[in-house]
Amino acid sequence: MKKIRKLGILTGGGDCPGLNAVIRAVVHTASRDYGLEVCGIIDGYAGLIHKNVRKLELADVSGILPRGGTILGTSNRDNPFRYAAEAPGQKQEYCDVSAVALKTIEYNEIDVLLAVGGDGTQSIAQLFFEKHRLPVIGIPKTIDNDLNGTDVTFGFDTALNTATTAIDKLHSTAEAHHRVMVIEVMGRYAGWIALEAGLAGGGDVILIPEIPFHMEKVCDKISERTRQGKRFSLVVVAEGAKAVGGELVVARQVNDASDPVRLGGIAAWVGNRIEDMIGIESRYTILGHVQRGGSPTPFDRILATRFGYHAVEAAMNRKFGSLVGLRGNEIKTSPIREAIAVPRRVKPEDDLVRAAKAVGTCFGK
Amino acid sequence: MKKIRKLGILTGGGDCPGLNAVIRAVVHTASRDYGLEVCGIIDGYAGLIHKNVRKLELADVSGILPRGGTILGTSNRDNPFRYAAEAPGQKQEYCDVSAVALKTIEYNEIDVLLAVGGDGTQSIAQLFFEKHRLPVIGIPKTIDNDLNGTDVTFGFDTALNTATTAIDKLHSTAEAHHRVMVIEVMGRYAGWIALEAGLAGGGDVILIPEIPFHMEKVCDKISERTRQGKRFSLVVVAEGAKAVGGELVVARQVNDASDPVRLGGIAAWVGNRIEDMIGIESRYTILGHVQRGGSPTPFDRILATRFGYHAVEAAMNRKFGSLVGLRGNEIKTSPIREAIAVPRRVKPEDDLVRAAKAVGTCFGK
Amino acid sequence: MKKIRKLGILTGGGDCPGLNAVIRAVVHTASRDYGLEVCGIIDGYAGLIHKNVRKLELADVSGILPRGGTILGTSNRDNPFRYAAEAPGQKQEYCDVSAVALKTIEYNEIDVLLAVGGDGTQSIAQLFFEKHRLPVIGIPKTIDNDLNGTDVTFGFDTALNTATTAIDKLHSTAEAHHRVMVIEVMGRYAGWIALEAGLAGGGDVILIPEIPFHMEKVCDKISERTRQGKRFSLVVVAEGAKAVGGELVVARQVNDASDPVRLGGIAAWVGNRIEDMIGIESRYTILGHVQRGGSPTPFDRILATRFGYHAVEAAMNRKFGSLVGLRGNEIKTSPIREAIAVPRRVKPEDDLVRAAKAVGTCFGK
Amino acid sequence: MKKIRKLGILTGGGDCPGLNAVIRAVVHTASRDYGLEVCGIIDGYAGLIHKNVRKLELADVSGILPRGGTILGTSNRDNPFRYAAEAPGQKQEYCDVSAVALKTIEYNEIDVLLAVGGDGTQSIAQLFFEKHRLPVIGIPKTIDNDLNGTDVTFGFDTALNTATTAIDKLHSTAEAHHRVMVIEVMGRYAGWIALEAGLAGGGDVILIPEIPFHMEKVCDKISERTRQGKRFSLVVVAEGAKAVGGELVVARQVNDASDPVRLGGIAAWVGNRIEDMIGIESRYTILGHVQRGGSPTPFDRILATRFGYHAVEAAMNRKFGSLVGLRGNEIKTSPIREAIAVPRRVKPEDDLVRAAKAVGTCFGK
Repeated sequence: MKKIRKLGILTGGGDCPGLNAVIRAVVHTASRDYGLEVCGIIDGYAGLIHKNVRKLELADVSGILPRGGTILGTSNRDNPFRYAAEAPGQKQEYCDVSAVALKTIEYNEIDVLLAVGGDGTQSIAQLFFEKHRLPVIGIPKTIDNDLNGTDVTFGFDTALNTATTAIDKLHSTAEAHHRVMVIEVMGRYAGWIALEAGLAGGGDVILIPEIPFHMEKVCDKISERTRQGKRFSLVVVAEGAKAVGGELVVARQVNDASDPVRLGGIAAWVGNRIEDMIGIESRYTILGHVQRGGSPTPFDRILATRFGYHAVEAAMNRKFGSLVGLRGNEIKTSPIREAIAVPRRVKPEDDLVRAAKAVGTCFGK
Repeated sequence: MKKIRKLGILTGGGDCPGLNAVIRAVVHTASRDYGLEVCGIIDGYAGLIHKNVRKLELADVSGILPRGGTILGTSNRDNPFRYAAEAPGQKQEYCDVSAVALKTIEYNEIDVLLAVGGDGTQSIAQLFFEKHRLPVIGIPKTIDNDLNGTDVTFGFDTALNTATTAIDKLHSTAEAHHRVMVIEVMGRYAGWIALEAGLAGGGDVILIPEIPFHMEKVCDKISERTRQGKRFSLVVVAEGAKAVGGELVVARQVNDASDPVRLGGIAAWVGNRIEDMIGIESRYTILGHVQRGGSPTPFDRILATRFGYHAVEAAMNRKFGSLVGLRGNEIKTSPIREAIAVPRRVKPEDDLVRAAKAVGTCFGK
Repeated sequence: MKKIRKLGILTGGGDCPGLNAVIRAVVHTASRDYGLEVCGIIDGYAGLIHKNVRKLELADVSGILPRGGTILGTSNRDNPFRYAAEAPGQKQEYCDVSAVALKTIEYNEIDVLLAVGGDGTQSIAQLFFEKHRLPVIGIPKTIDNDLNGTDVTFGFDTALNTATTAIDKLHSTAEAHHRVMVIEVMGRYAGWIALEAGLAGGGDVILIPEIPFHMEKVCDKISERTRQGKRFSLVVVAEGAKAVGGELVVARQVNDASDPVRLGGIAAWVGNRIEDMIGIESRYTILGHVQRGGSPTPFDRILATRFGYHAVEAAMNRKFGSLVGLRGNEIKTSPIREAIAVPRRVKPEDDLVRAAKAVGTCFGK
Repeated sequence: MKKIRKLGILTGGGDCPGLNAVIRAVVHTASRDYGLEVCGIIDGYAGLIHKNVRKLELADVSGILPRGGTILGTSNRDNPFRYAAEAPGQKQEYCDVSAVALKTIEYNEIDVLLAVGGDGTQSIAQLFFEKHRLPVIGIPKTIDNDLNGTDVTFGFDTALNTATTAIDKLHSTAEAHHRVMVIEVMGRYAGWIALEAGLAGGGDVILIPEIPFHMEKVCDKISERTRQGKRFSLVVVAEGAKAVGGELVVARQVNDASDPVRLGGIAAWVGNRIEDMIGIESRYTILGHVQRGGSPTPFDRILATRFGYHAVEAAMNRKFGSLVGLRGNEIKTSPIREAIAVPRRVKPEDDLVRAAKAVGTCFGK
């Protein structure tokens, strides 16, 4: 059995606070506890394809713990198993360049690949593991918190803080006028940020992709509040929330230039519908990528550090093909395969949904 | 000359962090230094029309210093000199109900009215002063910082902090991908928030109402950055920014339901134009009313407290018809009339604009 | 079996962000889901002794979710089973006034008592349950996170954020000079805040009550950093940390006026020892009660809300004598008795300690 | 007259948020507007003595705008006109090594020296200007805000925010118990931080070096609050505050190891005196260097950027020997000589003190 001497690490998919904390923990643990070398792969899997790799030493990770972003860069496009050959004017073609990626790994003498990323990144890691028997360890990362295999991922708490701070600010101003404030948060398929920020911020209405909503119910809730003498209502809506039954609701960042509502989004749509249906003025906020930025919260830094530490432990224990994850207060490993089998979604009977309902939140249903 | 025994105070116009600090300072100063009573008028001038007034004692203002919003409520509609009689199905008519407002003042034995508000609120205060010889003192308030008579108004620093924090977060995430981030901040007619938040946050492009922009120049700047190896660019745009020469740019919250771009806004428009013109992906954030909320910054709390203190001093010194204002490190008074004569706008030759250009900012011109 | 119609709730022990969120969730759930009444007991168990109780309705808990403190007040002195009769000039005597407390409960027709608090509060709740068969439900609260029966308590995440923010700020300034920065955080017996804030903030040395430290090891670590060219080191010390072997280390807030070092604390002591031993200048910060204040983080608000919701559920399911607690992503109940049997302390072999060591942290051992 | 081709910049004295923003603005303005080169001098005047200088290009200042600290390092010891020759075991001797410093300037072909710093740094700059006719431009920097020649310096607003945030947190927790909270903030000779943070945070008592205090008055104020039913009081004390009449009050960080109260500080002293005199429990917080750290506020970033921009302008306009400063909304220059003649102190009749008294603050007098 080959001795492990060098680890490679890459960060894939969308940006997420805590990535640097993972990288730092990996480099420290590898170097201090095991005397291993660490290679950073630049821009996710793209770095494997384009042979863009650099050595990571302790000095390289000094001071990065509290910083957002990732010193390795990321990419959410370049899949070595389905690489898009760019040929302008022609039909897009895809080819498998995973052998090239493997060559980069061999050339750099990387013994184990640590893949930090969400669904997409882990699926590719799993392919390398299955098809090419590459020793991989997965580290879960998804700001939407929609990955199984862990109670929660780093980055989510930071996004939740940003969203809740915004809701708090809207609350303080909303009381001055008779108005509905609509705030759109991230979550195209999973409503965790909307649900938890709505719960933390005391949102009156929470609309998430997993619970299609009726505008009538939303308006009923707001009208009920008006009758109770409340001067404002606050609606938290996930970018992927959908109205029931054929009502046109568009995702925020549609790329089709011919789309007449290309400029709009779900927040504006909901706000305008409320104005039309019950005549109460609305204002909206779209947080967008602000939620992916900023210094990670202590929770996320600690979780990311633990993930980094345990990923090296898992590598040394040759638990290849596994993903580290938080279970209660402990870090455990489980097969990557299981984590990517089904996404983690809010279920209407989830405890958080029931708690939200108990404090009076309307889900538009 | 009638002795001053009771002050009335109202807060008018849009919400603004620091209003409660003004109210608190007025009640304390009036009560502690002069033994005066204070009456709070509810919902701005609407309270005078609808006889909605309540006594304010020290206990009423306990703990409100750090809170956003206003315990008196506000309104930006009800002008006693041009009151909209609501008659559904008929042509809107306006009438002068200022005599009713005066009756409320007389009935409550208010000797001096302190009017906290922006352009609109001060104009009405000036009318009361001119037409009815009502003793008024103005306290400037505008989150957009577009009022003359003071170096700066409270609320602006808080909004600036909120906007800059968002820009900082976008910066940390922007570096991970090749992208343009567009952030829309408040400022329909005055670009102070965009200018200062852009300067504080290191925005690459700042678009403000006072400097109509060319999309070509914006794209040139972004392309230049790409050539220099920068992976991202950040565009800060005031909601009222306008492109030169007939390009359709809509304000964010158009109320005409038939407007085809009703859902969109300037941030989306600029982002989409960049994608169309130079093919770089863009993402946008619309901060909206988040900027009006939150606990006021120390700067705003101190300024608001000083305004409140000096407004009472000005009242006792019978400087009726004046507005308190910050001049350097001192609080001075000037005629309300002068402050409302012309709005305070960014001038292209302003020192802040020059400083922004010196650090490389593009204004689209 | 008597039908449950009214719940009583009290908050005991030290202040902790999230208490208001619990109260709000209890009132909402009781009222909306079960049509129950809720009574608030003022100042913890003192309210039962002094018959200080008030009805809590939905309006009473409106707007309190994001607020620190507790609208019910608290007390960490008045134990009904060992009540200190105040008789100046005489020897302090204690008596059992629990019968009085029970009368208050009966008089107010409280069917179940929800006790929110730490070790002390839960022990008293358990006594009422055991000795008087009072139906009680415990809700764990301790900023130090030293209670068993739950993975974590609310308030801890907020304190952790405050401590980490301070450490981050020290880091940014520490680099400018050649210095050691010592920061003292809460934790008289349990070092969780120091450990997690030190891990999140990248502290070079973490000193906690559970791991007695050697000043030599601390100085070795700092000297090693100096040799590596690092201009600063950061020491995070829990207020209850102790040096090995007879070195005098005093807790911060000693109440004996004759104590010569009454004014000092562990931070100053450690800083001065470093200066004496290796001649590097030190500066210290003592955070104190700042850590107990502020608006709760989203994590704490959500956890507190879930605890409140589930405490009502547990009451309705007659799980008397149990404590609600977080286990992974779920809320579960366990006997109060078990939770208070032994305190939750950092163990030297804990995963967090190992992760901290892996990233280079010195524990003075 | 020699053409200006290269600027040198150094940062001296204590750390202060905004230094990096100044450096960035100088490099951008020099390079973009005038095609000048910029040299960074490392560790303040020490860099001139030890020939430690490096070129600063646009890439060097990329991303530093929001960062605390200074990329150039600083030193508050090395005065070229009175340099401490280190000779262990001998009497400390000082010598004038300013000629060495000048050589470094000549060798590096620095045409104008920009000196960013407070009293000490500007005094040395003035000596270079007077004695050696070195073209210097001063940029004021002092976290204590005790420098004349400008309405305010950068760094102060950031420190004020940190101190006020801490006071806000103490407020939220103070209400739960019957207690006095004492918070010690920076200000050895000037009480601006204590005064403004106390005003912004609603401190009941503010103790500053400029107004020696009587403990009796402090206790009277607290007792009065107790009589009014207030459960807590908050005391903000500058580290250099002094009690009237011989009462021993020590500065926090005394360096004499034989001092029996070396461990203590003014916060502990005041808290203990209150306990002794009126029997109310007290807790204290010592913020320390946390106030010097963190990302600069937008206000400080903008002011620092403007200072940097105008310092280059002043250099090009050959206004040597002047200091840039904020006057109202404008940046103006004045002779360094005037700015350092007398320090800026709080005067008992200052507007801020009167406003603080009007809202009920006690100054212990």
